[in-house]
Amino acid sequence: MPFQDTDFKARLARHAEEVEAALASLLDGQTRPGEYARPERLMAAMRYAVLGGGKRLRPALVIESAALCGGDPRSAMRVACAVEMLHCYSLAHDDLPAMDNDDLRRGRPTLHRVYDDGMAILAGDALLTYAFDVLADEATHIDPRLRADLVLGLARSSGLGGMAGGQALDLEAEGRYDAGARQALNASETRLLQSMKTGALIAFSAEAGAIVADASVAERKALRAYGEAIGAAFQIADDILDVEADAATLGKATGKDQARGKSTLVEWLGLEAAKAERDRLVQDAKTAVASFGPRAQLLQSVADFVAARQS
Amino acid sequence: MPFQDTDFKARLARHAEEVEAALASLLDGQTRPGEYARPERLMAAMRYAVLGGGKRLRPALVIESAALCGGDPRSAMRVACAVEMLHCYSLAHDDLPAMDNDDLRRGRPTLHRVYDDGMAILAGDALLTYAFDVLADEATHIDPRLRADLVLGLARSSGLGGMAGGQALDLEAEGRYDAGARQALNASETRLLQSMKTGALIAFSAEAGAIVADASVAERKALRAYGEAIGAAFQIADDILDVEADAATLGKATGKDQARGKSTLVEWLGLEAAKAERDRLVQDAKTAVASFGPRAQLLQSVADFVAARQS
Repeated sequence: MPFQDTDFKARLARHAEEVEAALASLLDGQTRPGEYARPERLMAAMRYAVLGGGKRLRPALVIESAALCGGDPRSAMRVACAVEMLHCYSLAHDDLPAMDNDDLRRGRPTLHRVYDDGMAILAGDALLTYAFDVLADEATHIDPRLRADLVLGLARSSGLGGMAGGQALDLEAEGRYDAGARQALNASETRLLQSMKTGALIAFSAEAGAIVADASVAERKALRAYGEAIGAAFQIADDILDVEADAATLGKATGKDQARGKSTLVEWLGLEAAKAERDRLVQDAKTAVASFGPRAQLLQSVADFVAARQS
Repeated sequence: MPFQDTDFKARLARHAEEVEAALASLLDGQTRPGEYARPERLMAAMRYAVLGGGKRLRPALVIESAALCGGDPRSAMRVACAVEMLHCYSLAHDDLPAMDNDDLRRGRPTLHRVYDDGMAILAGDALLTYAFDVLADEATHIDPRLRADLVLGLARSSGLGGMAGGQALDLEAEGRYDAGARQALNASETRLLQSMKTGALIAFSAEAGAIVADASVAERKALRAYGEAIGAAFQIADDILDVEADAATLGKATGKDQARGKSTLVEWLGLEAAKAERDRLVQDAKTAVASFGPRAQLLQSVADFVAARQS
């Protein structure tokens, strides 16, 4: 029986619901061993940053990759939550006036607009820290080797040589642009920045499913390659969206990258070539997981979904 | 032969030098597996936040506790560096205008004064993340169980139920004070805030030495109790210092806590009773490690040192 698109969407929606519930449960007010107290206002800010929306793409990648490799769904759910907390901390910090200065996120006021800059910094710090807490906890997996591997992978994809490093390159490029440079970054610098800022965590999300399922090296590599391809496709789709989309559809300001002088591949390649590269990447992603057979169909649909995204 | 104070100081100074070198080596420009690049300006900001000063109290606690339990010094040094990076990230974020708004730290301009707020937030984020990277890396210890334990302990002492939570309580209390409250926190709230904000990471530093040395449960508990006592003593000593010290000696503004309406135990207990509590805590710390015998003398000297600190 051929794979149905409606099945796919229902499945992603169900994941998103379950992730929401699991995140809410991790962010309850009850202290865990070794915690002194969970301050109410901080917890509320963390919940605001994490709950209530988003496509939950990264959690879906963790969950589906783990399922593909026969991992325990409860383990995968905790890893999915850790990755999502990491992602949400990065949004909260990137939105700050000292960074991208955004007032809207997912159609709601950004964290620092509801609280203040100090609490937004702190809630982000606490989410980042809690992500590692969740991964290292025995509840995630009985085997500490896998837990340590997950921590290392998340840290490396989101730290100085990954996401945070990408954001640093971005700030630097904006500084150069403000100082009068016509093009702050060339094409290969743009690719590096995007791989670090967006691609690294998406790639890790797919790989993390393999890690938590204790998959073979070959399976882990395949899912990593898949994740890298859709991470790159995701970013190009985002750049295309920024040029083409209507502000009303997106729920945030568009054409903003251009106004800020952010370098995008659309700019370097032209719109048509960018679309071709996006499609090639989607194909690469599908090929990467072809060895899993028909069971990989859902991840292959995710690749299409990422490229076609409207928001 | 009785323990000599000069030996003690020379030993701490040697630790501080070795920690400095190890931190510099971890923060070099060379990428590690899984990293895309190490952006120059971000690395420079991270080095500025971490290198060049400080007493390195927390690393000394890790190193000496590990030595006491027969741990590998190279493992202990990596854990010491992780704890210090965590500490330095917290200083960088606390100094931000959105938090405590400090211009001076260790007699030098604070990180955001040298770079900017965005880079200071990001360098802090990257240091926090890198601390977990260092702990989870196989180079820290061959046994993944210990690495996962270290990650969990560091996360729990520094996250929402520890240090970050303490800073959130602090921000909240300042808000209440600004809104006209005469005393934002009562004595027990002040104790909780201080345990979380300062005590938790100091307590973990001593415990981490036991973890990395794979010490017995009894040894780990003893070192944890020691760490909790000196953590509390440290904070009271700091509060006393704030009242008594001369700005020139301290290299930062004093009397500042009072001006901000920060609640301290000195205020609640009075100066003499606060000193008595500090001394009692030092005694508790010494008693906690008495079972290790004469080899615990160095940690006992650290307890005296913490209480007598002038800066």
